[in-house]
Amino acid sequence: MSSALPETMRALSLRAYDGRPESLQLVQMPMPKPEPGQLLVRMAAAPINPSDLAFLRGLYVRKELPAVPGFEGSGTVVAAGSLAGRLLVGRRVACLPAPTQAGTWAEYVVAPFKQCLPLFPSTSDEQGASSFINPFTAWALMEQARKGKHKALVQSAAASALGRMVQKLARKQKLPLVNVVRRAEQEELLRKLGAEHVVNSSEREFEERLRLICQELGVSMAFDPVAGAMTGHLARALVDGGTVIVFGSLSEEDCRIHPREFVFRRKKVEGFWLPEFFKAGFGKDQLRALVEVPLLGKDFETPVRARMPLESAAEALSLAASDMTAGKVFFTPSAGR
Amino acid sequence: MSSALPETMRALSLRAYDGRPESLQLVQMPMPKPEPGQLLVRMAAAPINPSDLAFLRGLYVRKELPAVPGFEGSGTVVAAGSLAGRLLVGRRVACLPAPTQAGTWAEYVVAPFKQCLPLFPSTSDEQGASSFINPFTAWALMEQARKGKHKALVQSAAASALGRMVQKLARKQKLPLVNVVRRAEQEELLRKLGAEHVVNSSEREFEERLRLICQELGVSMAFDPVAGAMTGHLARALVDGGTVIVFGSLSEEDCRIHPREFVFRRKKVEGFWLPEFFKAGFGKDQLRALVEVPLLGKDFETPVRARMPLESAAEALSLAASDMTAGKVFFTPSAGR
Repeated sequence: MSSALPETMRALSLRAYDGRPESLQLVQMPMPKPEPGQLLVRMAAAPINPSDLAFLRGLYVRKELPAVPGFEGSGTVVAAGSLAGRLLVGRRVACLPAPTQAGTWAEYVVAPFKQCLPLFPSTSDEQGASSFINPFTAWALMEQARKGKHKALVQSAAASALGRMVQKLARKQKLPLVNVVRRAEQEELLRKLGAEHVVNSSEREFEERLRLICQELGVSMAFDPVAGAMTGHLARALVDGGTVIVFGSLSEEDCRIHPREFVFRRKKVEGFWLPEFFKAGFGKDQLRALVEVPLLGKDFETPVRARMPLESAAEALSLAASDMTAGKVFFTPSAGR
Repeated sequence: MSSALPETMRALSLRAYDGRPESLQLVQMPMPKPEPGQLLVRMAAAPINPSDLAFLRGLYVRKELPAVPGFEGSGTVVAAGSLAGRLLVGRRVACLPAPTQAGTWAEYVVAPFKQCLPLFPSTSDEQGASSFINPFTAWALMEQARKGKHKALVQSAAASALGRMVQKLARKQKLPLVNVVRRAEQEELLRKLGAEHVVNSSEREFEERLRLICQELGVSMAFDPVAGAMTGHLARALVDGGTVIVFGSLSEEDCRIHPREFVFRRKKVEGFWLPEFFKAGFGKDQLRALVEVPLLGKDFETPVRARMPLESAAEALSLAASDMTAGKVFFTPSAGR
């Protein structure tokens, strides 16, 4: 390890899974040390994702408290736990720490060597920081559609950063995609971005309109980060035998699906979670993802709404929760140091 | 066709999907005529199944009204629509009419030749009448467990006629099976029938007890005819990656499943419906079922609670709805004629 590294670092520390701003405090804590197979990264940027907001309230994975939140980020490799990793020291990388270990809302984080992607010099800290969870999720979801030979798709929360990536991939692959949004301005935004099929869930007769367009296009797979009643609407809209993939719970409600969809219409509901995809080891799929995702570049651009220091955690979180369509809020843990 | 057949027959006729007793009337209607590939069967017995009760209230498949209910039955073949079928004239058969066509709660019914099983002389009219839906469903569910290499199972509504069949098959195959019931006397009944694992859903801490026993046994597949909250309890109880098969909706409620089961625990919810199994054509599975199911004989015995004429429809239905554990109620459409 470089002797220039300090003994302690600043990090956001979660004290309770209750969603109260005072439960997240900026603290000084010992510098983490990389073990064999791990890298130590000085964080430049770390996004506030929907999964982070759920995590803070105890609605996502649980870490042992107190814990540092943040599931992805970008920065510069400053130390390595093994010889091979030292080749990366000084390089800018995107990194994905293990989901139950100390996270990226800190000046430094330790991440597995295999979950650190070197960044192109032209990639900004913020785009780099968002280059794991959403792009790989979008890629992996489209991969499931490809493997299942699905010819048309539908997604909820379509105006989210992830939703827009899915839209771009679907266009590139010439797969019709029905986009479900909640507000008129999201519908407008998506149409501007070239979306052909957009349905607004707050409009009258949403369910019936969704069903009609999905039946017309022959939609047989749904991507659903919303859960709750949305899972049931999507399941109902699909053609017989279709599959809903739930990969989030923005509604914070149980999935509610009419049993007829399972019994008479042979529909299925399954799940997807990126860490499982990587945990499955580095097989053909994972390697293809690591090659293909960075090449997709612009398709995976995340709109940036704000950059905030760790000191402004409460403000940053409230901004991030207020309107996800407006772009993503990033922490810049080592800015100005 | 035999010249001895009358011009008209008596049948129960449903006028509205509202569940009111007066919406089901005994009427005189034209005699059905078998087309090529069909047999005409003079009904001896036809059960009132949970799916019939759901059907009458519009909660199952829909036939065009007015319609004759009843999805299975037994009787004597009296005419055939094609030459091959004539060999069966005079034979006692179990029959399964197409689910959207005129049903078995009538003196005569037309059924596809391929969905009429000759009965052993020793098989009673009632056992014959119940020899399709429950036995083939139980067989097909266990077949899914076998194909998925599931080593331990759980089922809801375990004290039902179908639940008891599943229990017998599981014992025969030496697969541990957790039985979920709603009442203490059902628990007692199942234990008397040799069930090792029984959990009562009306007891305190049911969910946690169900989860613990399923985790201990490594249960990875659930059979669920109840739906509603039960689907979520079963999903939660399964080991990671497990599958719930919904094949009914006794609760008459939407399936409610916490999204974490899909996202983090890789669980799946799918469906099963017997007509789909047969509609899939007569492949290897269907042929194996047709050979194996009748041989299982005693394992598929249905407890008989009452035999009633079509004239007593209101009484029969109220009896059938009152307590399914007490045994099945049968119509005897051509008794005494």
